[in-house]
Amino acid sequence: MDPIFIYTMKVRDYECDTQGHVNNANYQHYFEVTRHEFLEKVGLNFYQLHKQGIDAVVSRVEIRYKVPLIGMDRFICTVSRLERVGLKYIFHQEIVRQSDNVLCARAKIEVVNLVNGKLSQPEVFDEAFKEYI
Amino acid sequence: MDPIFIYTMKVRDYECDTQGHVNNANYQHYFEVTRHEFLEKVGLNFYQLHKQGIDAVVSRVEIRYKVPLIGMDRFICTVSRLERVGLKYIFHQEIVRQSDNVLCARAKIEVVNLVNGKLSQPEVFDEAFKEYI
Amino acid sequence: MDPIFIYTMKVRDYECDTQGHVNNANYQHYFEVTRHEFLEKVGLNFYQLHKQGIDAVVSRVEIRYKVPLIGMDRFICTVSRLERVGLKYIFHQEIVRQSDNVLCARAKIEVVNLVNGKLSQPEVFDEAFKEYI
Amino acid sequence: MDPIFIYTMKVRDYECDTQGHVNNANYQHYFEVTRHEFLEKVGLNFYQLHKQGIDAVVSRVEIRYKVPLIGMDRFICTVSRLERVGLKYIFHQEIVRQSDNVLCARAKIEVVNLVNGKLSQPEVFDEAFKEYI
Repeated sequence: MDPIFIYTMKVRDYECDTQGHVNNANYQHYFEVTRHEFLEKVGLNFYQLHKQGIDAVVSRVEIRYKVPLIGMDRFICTVSRLERVGLKYIFHQEIVRQSDNVLCARAKIEVVNLVNGKLSQPEVFDEAFKEYI
Repeated sequence: MDPIFIYTMKVRDYECDTQGHVNNANYQHYFEVTRHEFLEKVGLNFYQLHKQGIDAVVSRVEIRYKVPLIGMDRFICTVSRLERVGLKYIFHQEIVRQSDNVLCARAKIEVVNLVNGKLSQPEVFDEAFKEYI
Repeated sequence: MDPIFIYTMKVRDYECDTQGHVNNANYQHYFEVTRHEFLEKVGLNFYQLHKQGIDAVVSRVEIRYKVPLIGMDRFICTVSRLERVGLKYIFHQEIVRQSDNVLCARAKIEVVNLVNGKLSQPEVFDEAFKEYI
Repeated sequence: MDPIFIYTMKVRDYECDTQGHVNNANYQHYFEVTRHEFLEKVGLNFYQLHKQGIDAVVSRVEIRYKVPLIGMDRFICTVSRLERVGLKYIFHQEIVRQSDNVLCARAKIEVVNLVNGKLSQPEVFDEAFKEYI
């Protein structure tokens, strides 16, 4: 099944640590950047939403690290699949090295919606994501 | 049960994002910093090990985000418990806000040992962690 | 002359890059953290000020890198001296490795004050810094 | 005069702080990324050079911040001009917001060359940059 969203990036040298690999926490940044680009594609802007009192907040992440990326590697980061479970949205995401299509990391990221700081039905997201569920 | 290791930190303003909260990926940094301080306490240094060809590598993380930290918050980050399962070490870790003892995040981090790039018995860690298992 | 403020930190491994040294941009983080701790000492909080419409904004930095810090190094970061020049505050700052007192970096950071986005007399800072000028 | 190298990027939300702006230190990352991309264009790779004992090391930065970038802004980062002065290379760089061509930051970055940790004539760079000086 094709991913519902793909974003291409390239490793920046400062993201690598003394082992020569992208530091683990930066994968979480890559996944976040990709979700925000996906939001932008469906007409939503993370910061504008925040100023309206709507905050998409990560409640749980699970990341499996398979093969390390190194400096200047090109890779794609996907939203492979999107699920709505209770009040949560679950983003299934992958990072794949572009040179050889090797899977580098796979994540399951749970996001909830706060409206003025209170856990809420994610209505603005239901509308925006309706084609992808 | 008391944690086996505690490290105290304070949120740096640049770690917060436009929502005013510590960005999710930074919790992963906090957990890593605490593991490396724990290593130092048992006589091991992450970078020295790397130069000897021994790399502790995270293979999986699971983080639950409960309550966000904000700028200048003091918090403790723990290694609550350490397990050896197969070739893996599993670090159970928590982040607790110091002002009111509220649990902010809880993690389960799986680490494997590479020797010259090959998955290996984590002997250097077995020796170092023997009191804590 | 003694510095007017000192803050002690320790290098975090993720702040180092593949050369094994703290990445240059992180020194700027260290200098910022130290200024914000200094602000806190004189009763001001960067984020609270922002919520009141008062933003201390860096307009110019000059950093000389002398000796690189490496993973787990302890160091002190200072505000050595503070000047008020026109509408600007100029922070003279240093980073000194604790093990041997070696100067690692020296900075001159110019900060201006925005009130509701407009360049303004830094009155709140004049009051807070009056003992240090 | 046209810049000698241009690299296009887009602000990532996690690079912004609680003021809603890209944190100052991240501009230094942008300038570094652009220099490393420029190196790649002339056939050099920062990490490969390091493994051969050749380290380009920043000895001084001077950055003027003009207009802040915010989340999701597209911008170009340039190497406007390159000078060789004594043992140093001086990179003149700019960050320009793409939507309206506004200059956001301007930098002068001095880089020296270490061979096996010793300050050296930057011969590998002289060869690589010969068209641009």
